[in-house]
Amino acid sequence: MARIIALQTHDVRFPTSQTLDGSDAMNPDPDYSAAYLRLITDAGDGLEGHGFVFTIGRGNDVQVAALHALEGHLVGRDVDRTLADLGGLWRELVHDSHLRWLGPEKGIMHMAIGAAVTALWDLRAKREGKPLWQLLASLSPEEIVDLVDFRYLTDALTRDEALEILRAARSGRAGREARLLAEGYPAYTTTPGWLGYDDDKLARLCREAVADGFTQIKLKVGADLDDDVRRLRIAREVVGPGIRIAVDANQRWDVADAIRWLDALRPFDIAWIEEPTSPDDVLAHAAIAKAVSPIPVATGEHAANRVMFKQFLQAKALSVLQLDATRVAGVNENIAILLLAAKFGVRVCPHAGGVGLCEAVQHLAMFDYVAVSGSAENRMIEYVDHLHEHFVTPVEVHGGRYFAPTAAGAGTEMHKASIVEYSHG
Amino acid sequence: MARIIALQTHDVRFPTSQTLDGSDAMNPDPDYSAAYLRLITDAGDGLEGHGFVFTIGRGNDVQVAALHALEGHLVGRDVDRTLADLGGLWRELVHDSHLRWLGPEKGIMHMAIGAAVTALWDLRAKREGKPLWQLLASLSPEEIVDLVDFRYLTDALTRDEALEILRAARSGRAGREARLLAEGYPAYTTTPGWLGYDDDKLARLCREAVADGFTQIKLKVGADLDDDVRRLRIAREVVGPGIRIAVDANQRWDVADAIRWLDALRPFDIAWIEEPTSPDDVLAHAAIAKAVSPIPVATGEHAANRVMFKQFLQAKALSVLQLDATRVAGVNENIAILLLAAKFGVRVCPHAGGVGLCEAVQHLAMFDYVAVSGSAENRMIEYVDHLHEHFVTPVEVHGGRYFAPTAAGAGTEMHKASIVEYSHG
Repeated sequence: MARIIALQTHDVRFPTSQTLDGSDAMNPDPDYSAAYLRLITDAGDGLEGHGFVFTIGRGNDVQVAALHALEGHLVGRDVDRTLADLGGLWRELVHDSHLRWLGPEKGIMHMAIGAAVTALWDLRAKREGKPLWQLLASLSPEEIVDLVDFRYLTDALTRDEALEILRAARSGRAGREARLLAEGYPAYTTTPGWLGYDDDKLARLCREAVADGFTQIKLKVGADLDDDVRRLRIAREVVGPGIRIAVDANQRWDVADAIRWLDALRPFDIAWIEEPTSPDDVLAHAAIAKAVSPIPVATGEHAANRVMFKQFLQAKALSVLQLDATRVAGVNENIAILLLAAKFGVRVCPHAGGVGLCEAVQHLAMFDYVAVSGSAENRMIEYVDHLHEHFVTPVEVHGGRYFAPTAAGAGTEMHKASIVEYSHG
Repeated sequence: MARIIALQTHDVRFPTSQTLDGSDAMNPDPDYSAAYLRLITDAGDGLEGHGFVFTIGRGNDVQVAALHALEGHLVGRDVDRTLADLGGLWRELVHDSHLRWLGPEKGIMHMAIGAAVTALWDLRAKREGKPLWQLLASLSPEEIVDLVDFRYLTDALTRDEALEILRAARSGRAGREARLLAEGYPAYTTTPGWLGYDDDKLARLCREAVADGFTQIKLKVGADLDDDVRRLRIAREVVGPGIRIAVDANQRWDVADAIRWLDALRPFDIAWIEEPTSPDDVLAHAAIAKAVSPIPVATGEHAANRVMFKQFLQAKALSVLQLDATRVAGVNENIAILLLAAKFGVRVCPHAGGVGLCEAVQHLAMFDYVAVSGSAENRMIEYVDHLHEHFVTPVEVHGGRYFAPTAAGAGTEMHKASIVEYSHG
């Protein structure tokens, strides 16, 4: 009988602030970082479970301390039994009443649980020899709903309704999987749009994005309206009318600011406005969505948990749902969020970039396409061409599409040499 | 020129789970704890600033790690200049983009900032020789609004509206302060109602509460409906019809559960239903409030920040606002929340109990009475008779009333001997 015998952590930080990659209206100088977790077993099969929380520098040590706080729950567990009931494991971690007090279900402790849950999925997928998306898509509807905690969801989505959604998606599943493997999944790129880049670099990167086959780019906005108008004009001129341009304010505005800004940006044919205000503010997003219609409002990378997503959907406060691989409590909570989105008929366009977010989140989008929403229409995964070389199974993005990973695991494993080289302190 | 020369922390845990004090439907075995912070200066006046985050045991070490993450912002600062601009200090801490990523504005990092901010207020109040409530009430409306960050609030409360509220409250301020010093501020007690107590202990403590002069008690509910009906019947029989009985579900329910439960409890004349569901779920609280009307819905002890409170008020999702001394980012954010409550005309009944929450939160309620809402009508501070002996200036509660503290400081300083005796690990 194999057991988990150790939980090891690493405080990994990349000095991205030196090049202003990742700079936006709220985050002028991020150092893309990972609070990184390895679960080690005595199975003797050489397989480990890896997970991480993406952070942007200072405080990554606190996030690592939160990973350690899960040691008592994880070390000593029977591997087979744990992996066979990851819904039960999720509930045990999230409902630990002492740890729950520190959120509840939000912030550092919730993200730490997410890293642990995802590391267990990584281990399970490696043991089963499948990429995570394919492992998830191979589960029965009953197995999938067992992974989800419906507490606080039942006024919008019950277990039975979730089962119905999953059963309906069984039809056409094999065809979608084959199509995914052949053609990949659409991507858009944020590479051109960081706020710290000058106009020449912006124009050059826009040109390259179109040449690389992307049909949507995203620009950071929100710090200065005149700058934003100038940068959007440059981008629109470079890419022409056929390419979508989304804009991202990274939570910079109050309601009135957002409306004023969007009035000025509207002529540039905006694909969506992302994170116009506080990620906690469902009602403000709803007010903005109503005022700036038909421009879609996108948010989610900082939504704390499934309860927040539920409300955003109930209030019609978003029409593009941007789930994040490491903000909520791991794969299980993201499945809950995918089911909510399917129930409300809202498209999911995951947040990525950062460290390893592209590698991790593609599995969720592809699982959604094959087995939940059954649709890739108007859906895209964000892509940023940073830091992929540090991962054992880096994303394959070509011609503006993510090609489905075939290697076993959740995509979350970093090269040992990268961990050593960029370990902090 | 005096500087802050050290930030010291302590992981303090009291073994309250041994007696089931504090047990409720979500928290069966809390060990009341404090992630405790001391700010030390080289002023040579013997004064330190003390603050803490209340937690319930495991994970208190992670909360302490988050306090340490603030060292770079605090150590080395000019004391006079820092204390003269605590609004600026708040913004610097809360808008540190790297640390903000770990919330944003919620959970472990936000609470750590709260402890630091409150420790600075404690130091300032000690240096000015005033209890915190009196120091705050002595500030001008302009000085008070400078403490508040209106970002994300302006769709509900602008700086000018806040100024108006504070200016209106200037009339009668001296009279209210005199009345407060003479008569104290109303309290209610949760001492009888912990879920882990047997029926005899419940009945005895209810009798004692009435004998002690309390006019409201609170019972924990939510685990088992039959038990709750039985316990409410006992409590109502013991206290008679003239004493209010509030009930507290500690987030246990979904919307339909809450409505079903309240239907059954309604005959016992419920003063309010507290935390019926997830503290993140504004829309669920609004639905419950509508369905159980006229029973008031109370919440707030786990509301993450001023943006959540704003929405609870906008959506009419609460009619009793229970701010907490250590959940949000300290005194400044609680001032924002008091102003929001005043704007919406909603009564504030702070959450207390725990470790030192009574000592800390009374200052906010008394400041509100004297200088913000100008009203104590139907308002009460929670009281629980635990752990006060560990504080240098314990609360004075007699005849069901909190008597205004007169000692300088924020009430947050624990005895050194207690810190040593209950230090963990």
